[in-house]
Amino acid sequence: MNVQAKPAAVTTGPVAGSRKIYSSPEGRPDIAVPFREIDLHPTANEKPFRIYDTSGPYTDDNARIDLQAGAPMVRVPWIAGRGFEAVAAREVKPEDNGFVAADKLVAPCPAPRSVLAGKPGQLVTQYEFARAGIVTEEMIYVAHRENIGRTQAAANAAATLADGESFGAEIPEFVTPEFVRSEIARGRAIIPANINHPELEPVIIGRNFLVKINANIGNSAVTSSAAEEVEKMVWAIRWGGDTVMDLSTGRNIHNIRSWILRNAPVPIGTVPIYQALEKVGGDPDKLDWEVFKDTLIEQAEQGVDYFTIHAGVRIAYVPLTAKRVTGIVSRGGSIMARWCLAHHRESFLYERFDEICEIMRKYDVSFSLGDGLRPGSGADANDRAQFAELETLGELTKVAWDKGCQVMIEGPGHVPMHKIKLNMDKQLRECGEAPFYTLGPLTTDIAPGYDHITSGIGAAMIGWYGTAMLCYVTPKEHLGLPNRDDVKTGVITYKIAAHAADLAKGHPGAAERDDAVSRARFEFRWEDQFNLGLDPDTARQFHDETLPKDAHKVAHFCSMCGPKFCSMKITQDIRADAERMAGMEQMKQTFKEKGSALYLPEAADAKGNDA
Amino acid sequence: MNVQAKPAAVTTGPVAGSRKIYSSPEGRPDIAVPFREIDLHPTANEKPFRIYDTSGPYTDDNARIDLQAGAPMVRVPWIAGRGFEAVAAREVKPEDNGFVAADKLVAPCPAPRSVLAGKPGQLVTQYEFARAGIVTEEMIYVAHRENIGRTQAAANAAATLADGESFGAEIPEFVTPEFVRSEIARGRAIIPANINHPELEPVIIGRNFLVKINANIGNSAVTSSAAEEVEKMVWAIRWGGDTVMDLSTGRNIHNIRSWILRNAPVPIGTVPIYQALEKVGGDPDKLDWEVFKDTLIEQAEQGVDYFTIHAGVRIAYVPLTAKRVTGIVSRGGSIMARWCLAHHRESFLYERFDEICEIMRKYDVSFSLGDGLRPGSGADANDRAQFAELETLGELTKVAWDKGCQVMIEGPGHVPMHKIKLNMDKQLRECGEAPFYTLGPLTTDIAPGYDHITSGIGAAMIGWYGTAMLCYVTPKEHLGLPNRDDVKTGVITYKIAAHAADLAKGHPGAAERDDAVSRARFEFRWEDQFNLGLDPDTARQFHDETLPKDAHKVAHFCSMCGPKFCSMKITQDIRADAERMAGMEQMKQTFKEKGSALYLPEAADAKGNDA
Repeated sequence: MNVQAKPAAVTTGPVAGSRKIYSSPEGRPDIAVPFREIDLHPTANEKPFRIYDTSGPYTDDNARIDLQAGAPMVRVPWIAGRGFEAVAAREVKPEDNGFVAADKLVAPCPAPRSVLAGKPGQLVTQYEFARAGIVTEEMIYVAHRENIGRTQAAANAAATLADGESFGAEIPEFVTPEFVRSEIARGRAIIPANINHPELEPVIIGRNFLVKINANIGNSAVTSSAAEEVEKMVWAIRWGGDTVMDLSTGRNIHNIRSWILRNAPVPIGTVPIYQALEKVGGDPDKLDWEVFKDTLIEQAEQGVDYFTIHAGVRIAYVPLTAKRVTGIVSRGGSIMARWCLAHHRESFLYERFDEICEIMRKYDVSFSLGDGLRPGSGADANDRAQFAELETLGELTKVAWDKGCQVMIEGPGHVPMHKIKLNMDKQLRECGEAPFYTLGPLTTDIAPGYDHITSGIGAAMIGWYGTAMLCYVTPKEHLGLPNRDDVKTGVITYKIAAHAADLAKGHPGAAERDDAVSRARFEFRWEDQFNLGLDPDTARQFHDETLPKDAHKVAHFCSMCGPKFCSMKITQDIRADAERMAGMEQMKQTFKEKGSALYLPEAADAKGNDA
Repeated sequence: MNVQAKPAAVTTGPVAGSRKIYSSPEGRPDIAVPFREIDLHPTANEKPFRIYDTSGPYTDDNARIDLQAGAPMVRVPWIAGRGFEAVAAREVKPEDNGFVAADKLVAPCPAPRSVLAGKPGQLVTQYEFARAGIVTEEMIYVAHRENIGRTQAAANAAATLADGESFGAEIPEFVTPEFVRSEIARGRAIIPANINHPELEPVIIGRNFLVKINANIGNSAVTSSAAEEVEKMVWAIRWGGDTVMDLSTGRNIHNIRSWILRNAPVPIGTVPIYQALEKVGGDPDKLDWEVFKDTLIEQAEQGVDYFTIHAGVRIAYVPLTAKRVTGIVSRGGSIMARWCLAHHRESFLYERFDEICEIMRKYDVSFSLGDGLRPGSGADANDRAQFAELETLGELTKVAWDKGCQVMIEGPGHVPMHKIKLNMDKQLRECGEAPFYTLGPLTTDIAPGYDHITSGIGAAMIGWYGTAMLCYVTPKEHLGLPNRDDVKTGVITYKIAAHAADLAKGHPGAAERDDAVSRARFEFRWEDQFNLGLDPDTARQFHDETLPKDAHKVAHFCSMCGPKFCSMKITQDIRADAERMAGMEQMKQTFKEKGSALYLPEAADAKGNDA
């Protein structure tokens, strides 16, 4: 056992200016949903502002963080009521950790957990419960969680009316547990929630809910360790990651994964083919159904909440990539393409799809049907290879639903702006409105080092059009493994994209936070502006670079324009003057009565209100 | 005279991996248009790649940079042929530099320049020449400059076919000088080019040309100096700024401006009301037409290429802002609103608009009609105040055209995604297709510290819809004055937005650079990938953080996935195998002839090609 056995301390403590609170849905004091609450300056005369919170116990000052013991098991009482069978855990094998030498072996997380599995005929998945008309605790939890913006809006008399364009989404005025159930039953939303992941704070992914974001972590053969990965997970959710994918490919991945899962309050996704490939020494040709199946069971028992399965990469589609500028850029896709060609056989993922469903149903592992043939450049966007696979994913979606599984669909990739909407429309049509989960898309290929931005543009747009979850891209995309700063930048960029999408869709209450920031800005409540933002630390640091003094935190200007040129200050002065003169509205009336030409007649006033 | 008199050395030398070249339009060896040329790795078997270049002499290894002497005067022979009168320069007055004490006075740039002015009846502006059917050297220059992507595409047999959605723009297959003339004559494009700015490398701004970006520089009363400002200009254009606005408001602004202008190869814009306000001691109530007029002449004689004039802030519109969340956020707008209310009079900018036109025509200073009532928050977007002003700007556009002036129109600001397109459509309608020049817009208000990103999303979208120039926003927006890193980040972000817009509009040849990067990526030509990107230095640095060795610059993987999981490597292996087997296409044929079910029948192959 080496020093990595105990991951180093992770980042804890509240996000600046906020505190963790818990709130229970009416009549369910046993369900405690976390939020962050931000106190505002007394002059604001506003109640503390509550926001959606993904950060888990790590930002709770009252929580005792013990990575060895794992995170609080909030789902245990709920799961206990469902009558699952505790089964003998699969033995951990040397290949699970990449045949790592004993002295290099990372010990697994010692937190004791029993392994559960559903039986045939028993209700196991959220989809099965929903289809049976049963509202689960997870559904009640996410309903309460989703409503936070609406609750804020209801408390605010001046709330902005939501007026978006949702492109056919059906976002409700208020989310009830029954609405959640019906969306899941229709396949339009999922709650990735493995029955072996009791530490999970449930989250819902679907077009009629808030847009979510995923952050990828994971070591590669070249770099990074267990401690780093656990901290990356904690760090990613601190800034707003709704789910985390562990894309590790090096050694020790079974044991590193145990640390991540036992301490993860968010759904964890993986790509099982990566570990399967490690088990066969890295040669795609040596993969087979047995090693893949074994890997599915191994990871499902550990509690992984969703699996990316590239079952749509059929052998017939591989030649369609021959003339592409960038061929196949999905790792899983290229592995399966190679396997198909090497064996001259149809993909075992496609042929064994029924069996895959049966395994995933047993633990309620959700499908994330992978887009192995997604374009790797704008030049390859929306081509036949990509769309042929999407059609197959649509076919497989229906199979997975028939088998009782929850499903979402992965999407591109690299797509110029004018080709984005077609992706969304076709996905909705082919896949029966199953949630879309896209990577970016990157809207141009000319900015290596800035692909969080090239893709953040596409992500905001496709989120607006209907994508349910956005997979982040960091500044290191195409160049190397992201570090801690890159993870944060990627997460914040994607929170922006997701929130911009919520606003544009007209999500009720989404504008509340924008308006709270804007009021703080207009009233020079600098601390409130920082704390209400996605990243209070950076905002404060930027402000303080030029005006570090405490006195400047209430100053009616910043260094951008200086005191004489601050438009907000001048506007406030105008308003104060106008109020002295009994208000601008009344002043206008006076002018009108005098027949002054200075003010517009009412007709002209109304003219351009064509918003 | 103090130490600031000689600005410190600016950043010089080629952008990594490229060299400056000059190219002349056919039959005009006297006109030399700058480009950057990027050499590619020998294995690429591709010619050096040429790109549009805004960086001026500073990236030319053969140029001798002498800030005292100013930049090369490329326009002198052209202007000399137009018969302008050299006039006695207006005397510099103490208030021009904010009454700064002698020992604090920054000396002006000593580069000798005569002051020219047009006479009534004479053709002066590019608009007047265009209307008279005359093609100027500036028009020939920008035509050659705009065609660079098309030239690259013509040389590339595999060029991607442009297939965008241009929303009614009329982008030509090839830009001729006559096309440029006709666009300017119709008011659909401008070449900001003061006859007193001979150092200018002309650039065209219009919906049927490449989308341009502006970078703001300028000191405020709180911080920054002359040397910093000149370096900020050089730095901003190094990374792609097409124009630069000097928004200085502190002391010494006349003399700092002389350094900027004499060394600026790009159009320089200003907001004259800022300096006018300085001249009256910072009290908006003390402003009047005389001090404003004096400032216009002062700056026009110095060579400023475009003025932001907030003539659309009419007194009648001010009360329309009373119930806004963030009131008036334009500095110029708030100054004029205050003046109107204080004097209970219509704005002198509106009342004296004819005279303003006459002054600006004399020097060919272009109008940038300011949006003084733009929204400062998503909550205020597209409201009556904003659109009332836009309608007035449309009215003033026609007046300015009648007076012979070039005009563009400024736009918002803060606008959620679903409200962006209306801004573009209304601007085109109200302002007779005069070029739109927007600030962002920011698509959400919740991310102070990241407003380059919140606004980059909106900028890409509005650029796609038809905006001709995007004014950058830096990470420091709302928080403080941007430093050198912020300027670069803002410029690169906006180059991304502008280029994403060009691609989506279907600009011929725009995809060439994307494709060149993608080919380099797929072939593991790491250096080419870095050098073809917007910021080679950052891309290289990111790559080298984990794989610093030279050998890794040809390695078939990076640290993101490691060697075994690189999809591009696997795809290359697949292709190599397939070629050994006589090609995937032929292999497919073979399978079909054998009647194998492994490959799709042609009908199914064609099905989903609904892109």
